[in-house]
This record gives sequence, structure tokens and C-alpha cells, in this order.
Amino acid sequence: MTRPFGFDVAPWSIGTTGVDASAIGHRESVFALSNGHVGWRGGLDEGHPSGIPGSYLGGVFEEHPMPYAEDGYGYPSVGQSVLNVPSGQVIRLLVDDEPFDVRNGTLTRHEQRLDLRGGTLHREVAWTSPAGPSVRIASTRLVSLEHRSVAAVRYAVESVDAPIAVTIQSEIVGTVPQPTSHPDPRVQEALDRALEPLGGFVLGSAATLVHRTRQSGLGMAVSMDHVVSSTAAAPPEASTEASDDLARTLVRVRLEPGERLELVKLVGHAWSGSLSVEALRDRAEGAVADALHDGWDALVAAQRARLDDFWACADVQVEGDARLQQAVRFALFHVFQASARLELRSVPGKGLTGAGYEGHTFWDFEAFVLPVLTSTAPQAAEQALRWRHATLHHARDRARTLGFAGAAFAWRTIDGRESSGYWPASTAALHINADIAAAVLHHVRATGDEAFERDVGLEMLVETARLWMSVGRWDAEGGFHIDGVTGPDEYSAIVDDNAFTNLMARRNLEGAAAAARRHPDVARAMGVDDEHIAAWALAARAMHVPFDAARRVHQSFAGSTEHARWDFEATGPDRYPLHDHFPYLDLYRKQVVKQADLVLALHFAHESFTLDEKVRAFRYQEELTVRDSSLSAAAQAVIAAEVGQLDLAADYLAEAATLDLDDLHDNTDEGLHIASLAGLWTALTAGFGGMRESDAGVRFAPRLPPQLTRLAFGIRLHGRTLRVEVGLDATIYELGEGPPLTIRHFDDEVVLQQGRTTMPVPPLPDAGVRPTQPLGRAPRSFDAALGRHA
Amino acid sequence: MTRPFGFDVAPWSIGTTGVDASAIGHRESVFALSNGHVGWRGGLDEGHPSGIPGSYLGGVFEEHPMPYAEDGYGYPSVGQSVLNVPSGQVIRLLVDDEPFDVRNGTLTRHEQRLDLRGGTLHREVAWTSPAGPSVRIASTRLVSLEHRSVAAVRYAVESVDAPIAVTIQSEIVGTVPQPTSHPDPRVQEALDRALEPLGGFVLGSAATLVHRTRQSGLGMAVSMDHVVSSTAAAPPEASTEASDDLARTLVRVRLEPGERLELVKLVGHAWSGSLSVEALRDRAEGAVADALHDGWDALVAAQRARLDDFWACADVQVEGDARLQQAVRFALFHVFQASARLELRSVPGKGLTGAGYEGHTFWDFEAFVLPVLTSTAPQAAEQALRWRHATLHHARDRARTLGFAGAAFAWRTIDGRESSGYWPASTAALHINADIAAAVLHHVRATGDEAFERDVGLEMLVETARLWMSVGRWDAEGGFHIDGVTGPDEYSAIVDDNAFTNLMARRNLEGAAAAARRHPDVARAMGVDDEHIAAWALAARAMHVPFDAARRVHQSFAGSTEHARWDFEATGPDRYPLHDHFPYLDLYRKQVVKQADLVLALHFAHESFTLDEKVRAFRYQEELTVRDSSLSAAAQAVIAAEVGQLDLAADYLAEAATLDLDDLHDNTDEGLHIASLAGLWTALTAGFGGMRESDAGVRFAPRLPPQLTRLAFGIRLHGRTLRVEVGLDATIYELGEGPPLTIRHFDDEVVLQQGRTTMPVPPLPDAGVRPTQPLGRAPRSFDAALGRHA
Repeated sequence: MTRPFGFDVAPWSIGTTGVDASAIGHRESVFALSNGHVGWRGGLDEGHPSGIPGSYLGGVFEEHPMPYAEDGYGYPSVGQSVLNVPSGQVIRLLVDDEPFDVRNGTLTRHEQRLDLRGGTLHREVAWTSPAGPSVRIASTRLVSLEHRSVAAVRYAVESVDAPIAVTIQSEIVGTVPQPTSHPDPRVQEALDRALEPLGGFVLGSAATLVHRTRQSGLGMAVSMDHVVSSTAAAPPEASTEASDDLARTLVRVRLEPGERLELVKLVGHAWSGSLSVEALRDRAEGAVADALHDGWDALVAAQRARLDDFWACADVQVEGDARLQQAVRFALFHVFQASARLELRSVPGKGLTGAGYEGHTFWDFEAFVLPVLTSTAPQAAEQALRWRHATLHHARDRARTLGFAGAAFAWRTIDGRESSGYWPASTAALHINADIAAAVLHHVRATGDEAFERDVGLEMLVETARLWMSVGRWDAEGGFHIDGVTGPDEYSAIVDDNAFTNLMARRNLEGAAAAARRHPDVARAMGVDDEHIAAWALAARAMHVPFDAARRVHQSFAGSTEHARWDFEATGPDRYPLHDHFPYLDLYRKQVVKQADLVLALHFAHESFTLDEKVRAFRYQEELTVRDSSLSAAAQAVIAAEVGQLDLAADYLAEAATLDLDDLHDNTDEGLHIASLAGLWTALTAGFGGMRESDAGVRFAPRLPPQLTRLAFGIRLHGRTLRVEVGLDATIYELGEGPPLTIRHFDDEVVLQQGRTTMPVPPLPDAGVRPTQPLGRAPRSFDAALGRHA
Repeated sequence: MTRPFGFDVAPWSIGTTGVDASAIGHRESVFALSNGHVGWRGGLDEGHPSGIPGSYLGGVFEEHPMPYAEDGYGYPSVGQSVLNVPSGQVIRLLVDDEPFDVRNGTLTRHEQRLDLRGGTLHREVAWTSPAGPSVRIASTRLVSLEHRSVAAVRYAVESVDAPIAVTIQSEIVGTVPQPTSHPDPRVQEALDRALEPLGGFVLGSAATLVHRTRQSGLGMAVSMDHVVSSTAAAPPEASTEASDDLARTLVRVRLEPGERLELVKLVGHAWSGSLSVEALRDRAEGAVADALHDGWDALVAAQRARLDDFWACADVQVEGDARLQQAVRFALFHVFQASARLELRSVPGKGLTGAGYEGHTFWDFEAFVLPVLTSTAPQAAEQALRWRHATLHHARDRARTLGFAGAAFAWRTIDGRESSGYWPASTAALHINADIAAAVLHHVRATGDEAFERDVGLEMLVETARLWMSVGRWDAEGGFHIDGVTGPDEYSAIVDDNAFTNLMARRNLEGAAAAARRHPDVARAMGVDDEHIAAWALAARAMHVPFDAARRVHQSFAGSTEHARWDFEATGPDRYPLHDHFPYLDLYRKQVVKQADLVLALHFAHESFTLDEKVRAFRYQEELTVRDSSLSAAAQAVIAAEVGQLDLAADYLAEAATLDLDDLHDNTDEGLHIASLAGLWTALTAGFGGMRESDAGVRFAPRLPPQLTRLAFGIRLHGRTLRVEVGLDATIYELGEGPPLTIRHFDDEVVLQQGRTTMPVPPLPDAGVRPTQPLGRAPRSFDAALGRHA
């Protein structure tokens, strides 16, 4: 079966043949390489044709004024936008003066393949120039997981049938077009001219460009050097020049048929808000020199070793559909490389695969991505949490501005300062603070890292607990309420007692109280006394969760079930996503759900609902949820599986698996949806694995949908690896080296010893008829989405 | 007692002496002249020193892009800002080459006086030039109520003690500075260069400048001509020149001591979106020629005649405080001149006295100003309603955009298109549509103008009724609800069942049903059938009004009484207005009221509450209401009076009376608060007069506060004049020519005959203790505010 975007199906790679001009931006995202510090979109080496070319450095952004039609107190005055930094990707080829361009001449072969185990992007080209001669080109690109500042390309060209003169122009391009990331044309104009060139330098065969952002004042250096080799009789000639905005190494050689020129290009990056031009240059050139010393083969080997280590625990095996298997590994690869070498930087919603959402980080990182990282790459997770911790001073300032105690973390940001321009859907979404706290709690539970809890986690827990105490109110009956906030669902806002927010705040308060009790000395030093702890525990217990007694169903927020239902029958398929065709005024006042909100609470606060309550709430929410957000399908899959709707869960799983690969939201060219990719892991582990974690430990309730015959995944727990292999009738738990581990398998407590333990899967209770979705908004079937690849 | 702004106290005028540099912008607003079509701020003739100089033409604005940090569906893309048009105000004087400037030389006399009966602004100056000679200057300015496009100045200068050479430069200044009206500096920049000069022309002694706005494409011409006379031996020499941006008439004469030069300057205005330069020029010059033909004395006499006619009915007499008497007439004068010669234009929130609020018209015009006009100047009221009617096509478009049926009128606009940039406090405030409908209903009831109802009113009632039917929802018990809207109070937003909105919508639906029944043929032609009418009536009856059964008090909106109370004790006086110091996020989620909302409903929907319910609701709301809006005090005065809190009502009355004169909100320099001025009339008539209107007719329940000994006011009813004179023990009703009129006096039905009818005032029942306001937010006492002028 032909896929919409023509990717092949393979277990450990994803590849495509030919060049499709209409899909080029999409492929740049899919083939993007990153290590969380440096990100290169997967564009063609020669730079043209291109979709949205991009090279990013984690944390590099430009500031811009925030335009408001009507200003308000506390509105952020400074916005932040990720920048396309000077690019070291470009390697242009001329064959007898004819520039290699896939649009000219004859392209007899064009393959791109992302190697998910090797961490490399491969390209194989066979091209006949309009002037006659044919060449073979092979390039391999990587963004090093070992050398954090380094990207590298091995580029080889071979003459096929004629003697040719080959010229290669390998460049750092300083004047890169900035992505269109802001709706205000005047803001965009400022972003387009954000980079001020500070100099181009050549030293031997190395060249460096140094720039600075005009407003945010961030200096950056991009440096390159090359290793050139050839099988030709006459050695290649190479020369390097640099101006302020362009560095170019020129390599010339004459090749007879069968002879080959190979170029290894090493690109180093450095940036800082304080370093001098010279220091920046030294850092970037130093990174290149280090990598040069190791050599290409060592870079590739280190890349593979890092990924082997990751996959050893993280790999998820699914049997029943080969394309799903590929999609899962594709997702995990991108989640990993988005955060592998963070080191106190944020992970944007698109990772470093594109400039969508202005390169901002949102709540979904902590809520969707961090659980995956904590379970599979805990060091990366720790770095991300330490980044949030490093923004605490901004969060405290923001809380003061908002009139709250404690800390209020930024809803969207790059450096920790709030950069959102529509407060009802950002500042009001205070749940982000509890989401961060939950990530801290999960991380401590999963790693057992008491030092992290004491030195980093506790302060975040305490400051967010203080926030909730100042945000909430007590009623006359002793209930605790949180008024006037916005939950995850963006089709409602400024509501009272959002169930997700309240339940996450409860967990936040409980977790802060427990952590403060575990570290009384540190807590006391933060001004936390027993009374505070008692108050947090009391508020957590008293937290109100809205329930519609007449309809016997939980409400997303107080009164939500009373509102008019959206008229789905009158809403044609061309009117989705709804926010592009209807005003918030209309969306907010009606029952229509953009994305899992109460359903997310059913997962994250699973202990607060009975199974029957989950069944009823899920069915109710399904009738209202249109999935206009990429964050929804995976969350729905988790609860669909829990309530026994395995077929529906499989359909949602398939949607999450194909969202970026099939560009279901028609915006993957702006970057991959990292949280949605992470959600695929969650749909499998928490959905069909039935994995839930709590203070009491980890519980599994694994059940495969009819479409799968086997599911295996691994998590790290206190340094050990637990692999879970779910079959049709039994689940095998395989515990790595270390002491025994107590888990729950359905309702049984099981003490796992090192090695394998097999447990039977109980029969599936009757789950009732399949819940219905709004007209036209049911997910594609698993088979239709994935194509049933054996 | 010295007033903060040094105005004297007089029954029919308001004057000041001296020049106070810090108060100059304030005085420009207080002394502004307008007829609803042309507006001149009360700046000094010579143009300097100035505060915020301004000349406006009703309906002339520039368009600008609306900047959004995050865009949303249905957000207006085009904004509108009132412009400072080319100014014909300037008359500069040179005495022996020394320019007259109040800051130089010696000012032995400087008086400005606004004559509220004459409709003229007088100025008397005695000045000794730094070079020695002394002059007396007298100017009188008017914006003609008779010649709609004309403003005029009589300017006289007299030598006191020496022979002098006098030069007068009388100008039209084309390059006028635009007011700072937009928070986005880039928008402001576009506004600053909005006027494109199209030519300056001289014909005989007349001169004309023509300009066009660059974006909105409105052409405008300002023309002037002069009549010069002198008692000097040698006749004055006069010459006129014009360039693109300046027209100047130069008059030179030599005056011996006691000799006098007099200049009558006539300024004509024309504007249009379609006329040619020539046609615009012809219109402006024609207006000047007409006025010239009438002559100065006729202009002044016509001005007085128009005002005599207005005051005959509209005058409100209060005894007990002379400054209150002055303030009431000042208020009525400005309300009248803001709308006297509208002719299908809107009345901005500041009238034509300043550029505040970008010159936009809001709901408060229909809710606060129109009731006064309908009762005292019904022709002006009709013009304003016909303007709204003329914007119905925009309102229908807007309703479609919002997903509603019928029409949704603009929350803020100049030409009828929505220009608001923060939808939760604008688009969501759908009550404006019911406010407009209420103004229609009142106008028809008060005038008995059936033709207006049939031709204009019915369509507005029908279209707004259709809006409410599509906005509301039915509950399972047959109640009708309006979710997710914003009421008058700007410290809450996007709430369910705002009581004010629901009650006004009820009135809208009832009124539409009744009007459709009265004009069945016209209604049918609009597609209204009996079923629609029945549905409107049913929804009106079923309208939900939220009530807190536990606290036995009405809620502003569903659940409002549950929210946390604002911490008034922790809010120092320097933190008001709250919206300048706290985010909406915090304000919206707590019980704190910026301005009368439920309390306004107690007045406007007076039949929907028992007296006891009013007492309880008022007391509850008083504890929360901070009056950060100029619209609040008068509304609170009305209900305070109704619930028997006469002393508190008097304090609120005094606040409304001094808001602009004493610049209580520190922004009167941007223009007068026309709706607040109108509220003063309402506070007296509906407050101490106890006047309420309904389908059943007019009711009075007059009761004077201890501070007043007499209150007399008049209203027009079906073309007749009813004057009401409230004394300490009795009320005298005096009905003008016409058939008998049935009113209610307290609980008695009284059939008034032409002439006087005296009714006793029943004793005041015990009203309980005085309600309390938030800490520090109690109104100043009547005596402290007004200074107890006998």
C-alpha cells in the first residue's frame, strides 16, 4: 500500500525515495536530527529545493515587543522567538560547472533514510547532469550525541561514466531566512533582521562566523572544518574564505569514472549571552577540533553506542503491524534526541525539528514527554527538570505579578519568562505548575534520587504548593476550590473547579507535604513549618471535584454538563479545527472539547475515580471531544483501553502513530509534535500495558487489542530495568539486576525477582457498546490508518 | 472654599480665573463646545500653552491594523481612531511684534466662562506686554447649534494705555498633533501621519484646507472667513494666504488707547467618504457663507433660542447646594451638545470633548445617555437610534461571524464595525444589544412615535430578539439560560447567567414580541411569524435569574457569591483602579465589582425584584463595589435612594456631580465622561425622584435627602412636558398642554390634568444601617465633595 508521504516500512529506519516538492517541508521535519542542544532539519545538503530550512540552537531566541490591541496589567511585554541560526548544513556540488540540483538533469536514484539505531541520516543519489556525465552521491549526516556542539556530514561523490571536474562548496550561511512565526507583520520584520553579523574568520582550513541577536543580545559562533580525501590521481585542491555572512570551503578535483571524492564536514556551535566574539569563536572552533581529533568513524560509533544504551531499555516492540512498530521507534527516537543533551535548556513543543510555536516550551513537555524520559532516559529528564528549577526566580516574579504566593511557571517560554499573549488560554492555565510538580514526583519515585528531591525537587514542590494555597479558596462546608482557571482543554477557559487542575493540585499539595516531611531540615530552611504541611495535606483532602449528580457523571469543571452542546450536526468537516472557524466566545460557552481534559485526569489522577466513574466519564467526554489538538488521541487511547474499549483504543493509538508521519494536522512541516510522539509510548504502556504509578508503586493491567499479538516495553526503576512483555494470554515481567521489586498485576501484588515472572491476563469484562464521537470526528480505524502491515 | 480646579459657583455658567498650567488639559475638556457634529476643545485662542488641543468631526476617524500577540477567529482586523482634524481655532495676536502669550508679560486678568444658557465660551484678558503696552482681549466662541457645520469666534482687542501696532494671525492649522490614543507605538505612528493634505485654497477673504485620511479615505475640508471691524482711524489691512497645511488671514491695524479691533471668524467644516476635493471645499465654504450672511448676532441669538427650548423642559433645579445646581446644568449642557445635531452619527464615550477611548461609542450611550435625551431632547435621541439602525448590516455580519442569528451590535466603534481588541470584555458583553433594544422601547413609550417603531425600532428589536434566542439555551426544567457572556462589570467576564444580561434580554424579547404584535404586517415581512413571537415570550418568561438560596441574595451571575472575596484590607489606596495593579486573572475569579452590574439590573429591571430583594442585593453589592468606573456612582445613587439610604445616595450623587469637574479619575483631560454626566440626571430623577418607567406608565416615588430642600425636573412624554417638583413634604406634578396623564405616585394611581397636582410624600420607612463599602472606597460625603454651597 502506498503511504500518503511515501515512507517505506522498516523496523529500525524510515526512508523515502524520490523528491516530492509538495512534501519537502514535511520530510525536513521527519528527517530532522538533534541532540537537544543543536538541531538540524532534514533538508537536502545542497540547500535547494527546500521547504522551511532550519538550524537551531537550544535556548537561542530573539526578543520582540508583544503587540496588544488593548493592554492589560501583567501582560508580558517581551516575546521570544526561536531563530534560524547560521547554517553549516550546505554542501553544494558542481559537476563540470553544472550545479547539482534534483530539479535539473536526471535523477535515477534519490533515497533518504533515517537510521533510528545509528542516529544518522543517509542519502543516496544517482544523477545525470543535463550536460551528460553521471555521478553517485552519498551523504551521511549526524548531530552528535557525544559531542554536544557538533554536527557532521560525510559527503562523497563518485564519477560514473565520464571524466569530470568536481567542485564542492561547503558553507556556513549567515543570512538565513527566518521562519514565519508571528502573526504581527511588524514583529516578524524585527525577527527577520534579528541576526547582526560580528565577523567571519579563517584559520587554516577552519572558518567561523560570529553573530549576535539584536534584542536578546545572544552571541553565537558557527565553525566548520573539513577532512578531504579522494581516490583521484591528482589530489583535491581546497581553499577557505569567510566574509561577515558567509564562510566557504572550496574543494576542486578531477575524477575519472569510478574515482571518488569524500568530504567530512565538522560543524561546531557555541552561544552565550556574555562571551566575547573571540571566546565564542574559540569555543566553536574547539568543538570542531575535538571532533576532528576523534574522526568520523568514532563519531558514528559513539552515536550508535549512545542509542544502543537508550534502546536497551526503551525499545518498544509491537507485533501485529510493522508500520506501527516503525512509528513507535520513530517516536521514541525523536523524543530521545529532543532531550538527549539538554543541559539546562528547555525542550520546545517541536523539539529542535522546526520553529513552530515560536520554539516555545509548554506544559505538555512535563505532562507528556517527561514521563517517557524519566522511564527511559532519566538523565535527560533530570536536566529538563533542572532547567525548570533554574527558572524559579522568573516563576516567583510572575506569581508576585499575578498576586499569588509561591511560583507560577511560564505557560510558554524559551528562557523561563512568560511569553504568552492571550492570558485566558495561558496564564489562566495554572495547572502547568501542578504538571511540573507531578513530573518531579514521578521522577523521584522512578529514580529514587533523594539528592535530586532534596536539592531541586523539594523547592519546586514547595513553591507550587504555596501557589495553590493562595489560588484556592475554602467553602463554608470545608471544601477547597480553585476558581477562574483554564484546564488543558482549549475550548473552555476561565472556569471554576476544573477537575484536572484540582486533582493535579491535590497531587501537588500531597507530594509537597510528603517531600517536606522527608526533608524537614531543608523544608524548614525554606520557611516551611508543620502548620504549612498540615494545611497542604488538608487542602488536598478537601479538594473539590465537580460531579453532576443528576447525570451521575463527573464534570470537566463546575457546571460544564449544563452548557449547551455544540451543534456537531451543523458543523461540516471543513470547519475543523473549530478554532479556525468559530470564535472563542462561542466555543467556550458550549460543551465541546478540543482535547482530553477530564479524560487526562482519569489517567493522571487514576486513584481518584472508580472504574465505573471512569467508564461513565469517558463515554460522556467521547461524545464531545473533537481532537483538534495533537495531544488528545494518545490520552484517549489510555482510558479507552482501561475501560475495556480496546478496539477504540487501537484506533486512537493508530492516530497518534500517524499524526506526524501522515501529517494529519497539516503542519508537521513546522516541526514534529514531540508530546504527541511521546504520547504514543504512553498509549502503549499506560494503555495496553495498563501501567499506572502511584506512591504504592507500579501497577500493570496489560491487555492487547485484537490488532496486536505482542507488546514489549521497558522502564527504568531505581536504576534497574523492568521489561514487560504482554502476550495474548499472559504477561512476562523481566527484572534486571538488583533486589526484588513489588508490583501489582491487575489486583494481585507480585514480588518480582531478578529474571522472568509470568502472570496470566484475566478475561476482559464486558465493556458495553463502543462510545461515540461527534459526527465525523471518530478516529480512522487502526487498519485504515496503518494499512495493516504484517 | 477653593475648588481643586478653581471653578466658581454660579447657577448658569462655569468660570475660572487665571491660567493653571497643570490644569490646562482639564479645562479644555470642561470648556469644550460641540453640537454632536463639530467639536472644539476649550483651548486658548492663541493655541499655546495647551494641554491636548483638539477639533473633531463626528464620524471622522482613521483605520489602523489591530495588533494581536496571538490572533483568534473573529478578532477585528481593523481598528478605528478618532482624529484631530485641521483646526480653525487658532487666533494669534501680536502687540508691537510681541506675541501675546499668557506665560509672558503680565496677566492682570484672565477669565474663561462657559455660558450654559448661551452656549458660548467667553474669555476676558487684560495683558501687559513685556515691552510695556497693555491690551484688553475679549473672545467669544461658539459651535453653532443652528448651523451644524459652523464654529465661530468673535475676537476683540483694545489698546489700554499706548498707541500700538496690532497684528492678528487667524489660521486653519493642518498639521495638528494627534492625541496619543493607542498603546501600540506602531499603530500610533500610523495615526500621527493619518492626514494627507490635498490642497489649500484662497477665494477672496475665504481660505480652505482639504485633507484626506490615508487609510479610511475620508475627505474633509475646513474653511474660514472673517468680518473685520475697528474703531481705529485707519482701517485694518487684511490679507489671506493658504498652503497645503496652513491657511492664514493676517489683519494689521494701529490702535490708539481706547481703540478696538474686532474680528469675527467663521469656520465651516465638511467631510465625506466619497466627495471630490472641489465638492468638499464647496460645502465648507458654503457653510461659512451661510453663517456670514446671518452674522454674529444672529448666530448667538439662535444658539440661545435652541438652548432656551432645551432648558424649558430639561432644566433640573436643586435647592440645598449651589454647586450641585451648577454641576447638574453643566452635565445636562454637555449631554445635550454631545448629541444636539447628530444626524446619523454615533456619540463617543467622551462626546466630541476629547479623544479618549479612541473616540469610540460604547453601550453606555444607549444605557445611560439615551434615557436622558429621550426624556429631554427626543429628536437627538431619535437620531442616535437611527444611527444604530444604520449599522444593522454590520451587526448582522458580526452575528454571522460569531455564529449567532440576528444582529450583534459593535461593542466599540465609530462607524458601526466592531473595533474592540479584547473580546472577553467586549464581544462577550452581548448585553449591549439588549441595552439598545431597551433604548428603543423607552423611546417609543416616551414619544409614542409609532412610525419610528414601525420603520426603525421594530427591526432592531426583532434582530436582537433573534440574537438572544440563538445565544440562550433551555434547561431540562424549562429554564432559559445565557452562558459565557460578560455583564457590565469589567472585573468579571465570561460568566453564566449574568443577571443584568438575562433581565435585559428578557425585556428585549418581551419588547420585540409586543412590537411585532403591534405591527404584524411589518413583522411578517421580516419573517417573524406567530411561533417566533410565542417563543420570544416564552423565553422571556423562562429567563433564569441566579439566586443564592443560602445567603438569600441575588447573584451577579451563576455562582458569583461562592467566589473568594477580594482582600480589600490588603489593598492600599494607591492600588486603585485595581485593573492598573492586578491582572484580570485575579480580578475575574474573586468577588470584587468595578461598577454597578446587579445594581444596574435593580434599576433597569426594577419590576423583577421585590423591595426586600433590592435591599439585600444592594447591601451585598455595596460591600464589593470599588467604583473604578465612572459609570457606577450614579447607578448606586439610584438604588441607594430606592432602598431608603438617602444619605448614601446623596454622597454618590455628589461623586457623580464632581467626577469631571474635580477630575476624580484623573483623566478628564482626555474628555468628559458623557455617560457619567448623564447619570447625574438619572441619579436625581430616578434616585430622588424615584422615577421608573414600564409598560404600565411612569411611576414616581420622590424623596429628598437631608442635603436638599427642593428638586424640580421635567420630562417630555408624548410631546407634552411633565415637570415634577419635589419638596420636603409634598410633590407637585405640573402637566403641560394636552390630555390627562395617568401616573403612579408611590402606590397611588394619579390622573394628572393639565396644570398642577400636589401629592404628599409618605414617611420614609426604616432602611436599616448604612451599607458599607470596601475599605477606603466609601464615597466622599456630600459636604466634602460639594463643599456645601448655599
